[in-house]
Amino acid sequence: MRFSSTSTSPEGTTERDFVHDGVPGVLWTPPGDPVGLVLSAHGGGQHKRAPGIVARAHRCTAAGLAVVTLDAPAHGDRARTATDDRFSAEIRARITSGGDASPLVAEYNALQAARAIPEWQSVLDALPGTGGRVGFWGVSMGSAIGIPLVAAEPRVDAAVFGLIGATDALVAAAAAITVPVRFLLQWDDRLVPRDAGLALFDAFAAPRRSLHANPGGHGDVPDDEISSAVAFLAR
Amino acid sequence: MRFSSTSTSPEGTTERDFVHDGVPGVLWTPPGDPVGLVLSAHGGGQHKRAPGIVARAHRCTAAGLAVVTLDAPAHGDRARTATDDRFSAEIRARITSGGDASPLVAEYNALQAARAIPEWQSVLDALPGTGGRVGFWGVSMGSAIGIPLVAAEPRVDAAVFGLIGATDALVAAAAAITVPVRFLLQWDDRLVPRDAGLALFDAFAAPRRSLHANPGGHGDVPDDEISSAVAFLAR
Repeated sequence: MRFSSTSTSPEGTTERDFVHDGVPGVLWTPPGDPVGLVLSAHGGGQHKRAPGIVARAHRCTAAGLAVVTLDAPAHGDRARTATDDRFSAEIRARITSGGDASPLVAEYNALQAARAIPEWQSVLDALPGTGGRVGFWGVSMGSAIGIPLVAAEPRVDAAVFGLIGATDALVAAAAAITVPVRFLLQWDDRLVPRDAGLALFDAFAAPRRSLHANPGGHGDVPDDEISSAVAFLAR
Repeated sequence: MRFSSTSTSPEGTTERDFVHDGVPGVLWTPPGDPVGLVLSAHGGGQHKRAPGIVARAHRCTAAGLAVVTLDAPAHGDRARTATDDRFSAEIRARITSGGDASPLVAEYNALQAARAIPEWQSVLDALPGTGGRVGFWGVSMGSAIGIPLVAAEPRVDAAVFGLIGATDALVAAAAAITVPVRFLLQWDDRLVPRDAGLALFDAFAAPRRSLHANPGGHGDVPDDEISSAVAFLAR
């Protein structure tokens, strides 16, 4: 893990850019000893410094948690492949023509998961012991990556997922997850049909899984759900 | 409101039994000035001092909230009518024979609401100003009473409902509720089919409504949902 710039906020949060195995990321650490580490994965079309990701990081450090995020494959500062471009073009064309883009999105998300999971595992190898506890937080494409990651990764103790519907691959991964899960859905999400979201929540094997649904679209998760998810991970 | 006994817990919560318009109840007040008043309605077959009601009251007073509860009609220390006995016998017989008791329960709940709503409104007349803010908390039969109560009662600012499914009457009342609502469902509730619970959540007109669903049966609402509901009402 090769760190480049370091800055410290007025609240004492230290923010460090890094590149790890060729993947750019950011590590935020609270002023004192962290009580845990949050793997924070952004959604599709976002990047490691998207406003929601930065805001989430500062909420977490205020609760004593360290946070690490990565640019997802083909996002942020990372190179896009011809496959990424082809998926983007096809998904855009499908939406423009009024068709159902969800099978293509699910296929692309599965590709993203296959590429990103070893990257997150390598980050965990490099940052194993921050407080001894590890949480995952990623919704939408962040969950498409995170659900199979947490299913495969015994070092993660709790996870915040959501804004995504059931696919065969995600249902199978969810059925392997037994750590506590917070699952966020938006009740008027035009990208995630309610039934698909509820079916995925239903698939988690976690004895402690909690569905929190609120009105509004894909991007409208209310502020107090963010605070509540921070508190969930801090516990 | 005629108070009888008064006691104070080691934490400084004062508990007072009362009878108001012939209805027995309990008022819990925190040590300092209350930040608000919670109308706490018990579920079917319970009473004003059911363990869950007492525990909820102490959680609320620890957050600075006063709490008032009443014995619902035909519950606790209150007289049962021939109609109550007939409903009880018919509901029991329906369940014993393996039939669907839910239409009978819905009918009985509507009767309970019609009787209890004026009682709660009269309590609010007698205890109007405790901190200036009023919340309602009742699940199951407590919601059967509370949803039409809050729809009719402009003095209630926020409500915790749940463990109940859609009926025409409840959907109509929910559509008149615009104050913030927390709605609790249990994912494996044999008394409330998922779809019926989700349909009722969907019916609330409240721009700020949040569904929290957890695994387990009707009586298994997790402890941290109770804490979270207290914090919701305290805000």
